[in-house]
Amino acid sequence: MIKAYAAFEPKGELKPFEYDPGELQANEVEIDVHHCGICHSDLSVIDSEWGEMPYPIVPGHEVAGKITRVGSHVSALTVGQSVGLGWHAGYCNNCASCDSGDNNLCGSAQSTIIGHHGGFADKVRADAASVVAIPDGIDLSLAGPLFCAGVTVFTPLLEFNIKAGDKVAVIGIGGLGHLALQFLNAWGCEVTAFTSSEAKKQEALALGAHHTLDSRNAAEIGGAGASFDLIISTVNVKLDWGLYLSTLKPRGRLHFVGAVLEPLDINVFSLISSQLSVSGSAVGSPSTIKKMLAFVEQHNIKPVVESFSFDDVNAAIARVRSGKTHYRVVLSR
Amino acid sequence: MIKAYAAFEPKGELKPFEYDPGELQANEVEIDVHHCGICHSDLSVIDSEWGEMPYPIVPGHEVAGKITRVGSHVSALTVGQSVGLGWHAGYCNNCASCDSGDNNLCGSAQSTIIGHHGGFADKVRADAASVVAIPDGIDLSLAGPLFCAGVTVFTPLLEFNIKAGDKVAVIGIGGLGHLALQFLNAWGCEVTAFTSSEAKKQEALALGAHHTLDSRNAAEIGGAGASFDLIISTVNVKLDWGLYLSTLKPRGRLHFVGAVLEPLDINVFSLISSQLSVSGSAVGSPSTIKKMLAFVEQHNIKPVVESFSFDDVNAAIARVRSGKTHYRVVLSR
Repeated sequence: MIKAYAAFEPKGELKPFEYDPGELQANEVEIDVHHCGICHSDLSVIDSEWGEMPYPIVPGHEVAGKITRVGSHVSALTVGQSVGLGWHAGYCNNCASCDSGDNNLCGSAQSTIIGHHGGFADKVRADAASVVAIPDGIDLSLAGPLFCAGVTVFTPLLEFNIKAGDKVAVIGIGGLGHLALQFLNAWGCEVTAFTSSEAKKQEALALGAHHTLDSRNAAEIGGAGASFDLIISTVNVKLDWGLYLSTLKPRGRLHFVGAVLEPLDINVFSLISSQLSVSGSAVGSPSTIKKMLAFVEQHNIKPVVESFSFDDVNAAIARVRSGKTHYRVVLSR
Repeated sequence: MIKAYAAFEPKGELKPFEYDPGELQANEVEIDVHHCGICHSDLSVIDSEWGEMPYPIVPGHEVAGKITRVGSHVSALTVGQSVGLGWHAGYCNNCASCDSGDNNLCGSAQSTIIGHHGGFADKVRADAASVVAIPDGIDLSLAGPLFCAGVTVFTPLLEFNIKAGDKVAVIGIGGLGHLALQFLNAWGCEVTAFTSSEAKKQEALALGAHHTLDSRNAAEIGGAGASFDLIISTVNVKLDWGLYLSTLKPRGRLHFVGAVLEPLDINVFSLISSQLSVSGSAVGSPSTIKKMLAFVEQHNIKPVVESFSFDDVNAAIARVRSGKTHYRVVLSR
C-alpha cells in the first residue's frame, strides 16, 4: 500500500489516504519520495478550478526521490538512483509529438495528479519515460521545483532560440519567476524583472535581474520603449497586455507560462506592425528537463525553498495559498 | 511635375493632382510607373480608417515600372531597369532592424502613401534601398501585386521556417490568399483553403489548395482536429479564433497578415496546452522581396489580376471596395 495525502472534495483539506497501486507495470518505476514541491496547479486541481476533478486527488508533481523498483522493460533507470518526476507521469510514446521528443505535447500524456496519484505520498509510480535522473551535483532537497516550475521557464529559452545578449523580462517573481531570473542570468541575457515593491526589487536583483521595472507604474513600463526580445509571464492575473507588447522589440515575443483565465485582448495591429508573437507553453519534455538539470548543475542554480514536513501538508498548502512564499514550498521527509 | 491621382478628403473620389517632387536626392530613384496594383490598405488610407491622414493622399504601393533617373549615390539600380516599389519608400538604414536586413521593421520607415506620394501617378520616387529589380521572367503587368500582397504572405514562410511537407491553411482567398495558395503549393506544403462557397472551393483548388474547409461550417472546421502547422489569416473580419486555434498541431501558429480591428480574444490555456503561437507581420524586407521574386520566376507563379486604366482609377477603386475582385485590381497605362 502507498501512504498518501489526498483531497476528497474541491478545496478540501488533505487527509491521509492509502491505496494499492497494483502490480508494477513493465514500463514503470516506483520512486521513494524524499521531497515534493507544491505548485499553484496542485491547488487548481484540488479546487477543481479547471473543471471537475476525479477525487480523491493526491497532489504533488515536483517529486525528488530515489528509485525503489523498476519494471521488467526499464533499462535506463536503476534502483537507488536519484530521480525526479514532474507534471507528466507517462506518454503514449507513439504519436507525432512523442516521435519528435516533444512528449510533453503528447495528446495522451498522463498527468501525474489527475487520474493518477501524485507525490504527496511515501511512494509514487510513473512511466520510466517521464522520470529523469538527477545529477549528483544537485541537492535532492532542492531538486523538486525544477521538475515543474523550473522546466516551465527553461523551455522557452530552448524553444525560441534565446541567446546570450538577448534582452528578456520576467513578469511575476515567484516560484517560476525566481528560477527564470537565475536561468536567464546564467544564460548570458540582459535580464529585467517586473516587480511591485522596493523589497521585491532588491530580491529580484539578488536573484539575477540586471534591471527592474515597477509593474504598477504604466508610465515607467511604457517608457521602456521597444526593449525586449522576450517577455515571460508567469502570473495568472490579467494585466494590460497591450502595454507589455509595446515594450517588445520588432520580432519580440510575449510568452505565457502562467494560465490567465481571462482571454487576452490582443490588438492585431500591434502584432502586425512589429511582427510580434504571443504564445504559451507548459512544462517541457524529458529531453528539456535533462538539459535544464545539466545547466542547473553547471551554473549552481538553486531553487529558494521553504520546507515543511509531509505531516504539515495542510499548513504548507495554506502557505502557498497566501501567495507570500519565498519562493517555493517543498514538503520533505 | 508629377501627374498623379489624389484623394483630398476621407473616402473622397480621386482627382488629378500635380506636384513638384523637387530635386532628386542622392539616394533616390525615379520610376516611370507602368502598372500599379490596388490594395485594401490604399482604401484604409484614403478613408483615414487608421487615423486622420495627411491629405492629399496619392495612393498606390504596388508599383511596377522602369527607372528613369537615379540619384548620385545610387549604384545598385540603373536607368531603364524594371523595378517594383511596395509599402515602404525608404528606411533609416541605421537602426537595429535595418542593420539586420529587417528594413520593413524599421521604426522610421517611410510609407509610400502616407506623408509621401505613391504610385497612382506617371512617376514615383523612392529611396533606392526600397526599390527592387524585377527579373526578366516576370511579366511587368503582373508584378505590382507581388510587392505588397505577395511579400506579405511570402514573409511568414521564410520567417517561421516553413518546410515542404508542412500543413498550412489560408483564411481568405483574395488578393493575398490567392498568392499564398500558389506560394505554398510550390513550396511543397500540404495546402488547405478555408472557403465559403462551392465556386470559391473550385477556384482555391485550381490555385493550388489540396483541400478546402467550409469557413461557415464550424463543425467541419472543428472536425479537422489538430491538423495545421501554420494558418495564415488574410481577412480583416473577426472570426472564431478559438475554433481556428483548435485546428493547429502542437507548436502550431495562427499568423495574421490581415488587420482585424477588433481585439483577438485568445484563450491563454489553449496557447499553453499545445504550445501555440499567435503572431502578425506586415509586408517584408527588400531581401525577402528579392527571394520571393526569384521563387515566383522559378515556379512561374502568376498573380491573377483585373486590369483598369489609370484614367478609370475611381471605377477600379469601386471594384476593390466591392470585395468581388478576382483577385487583384491593377491599374495599367
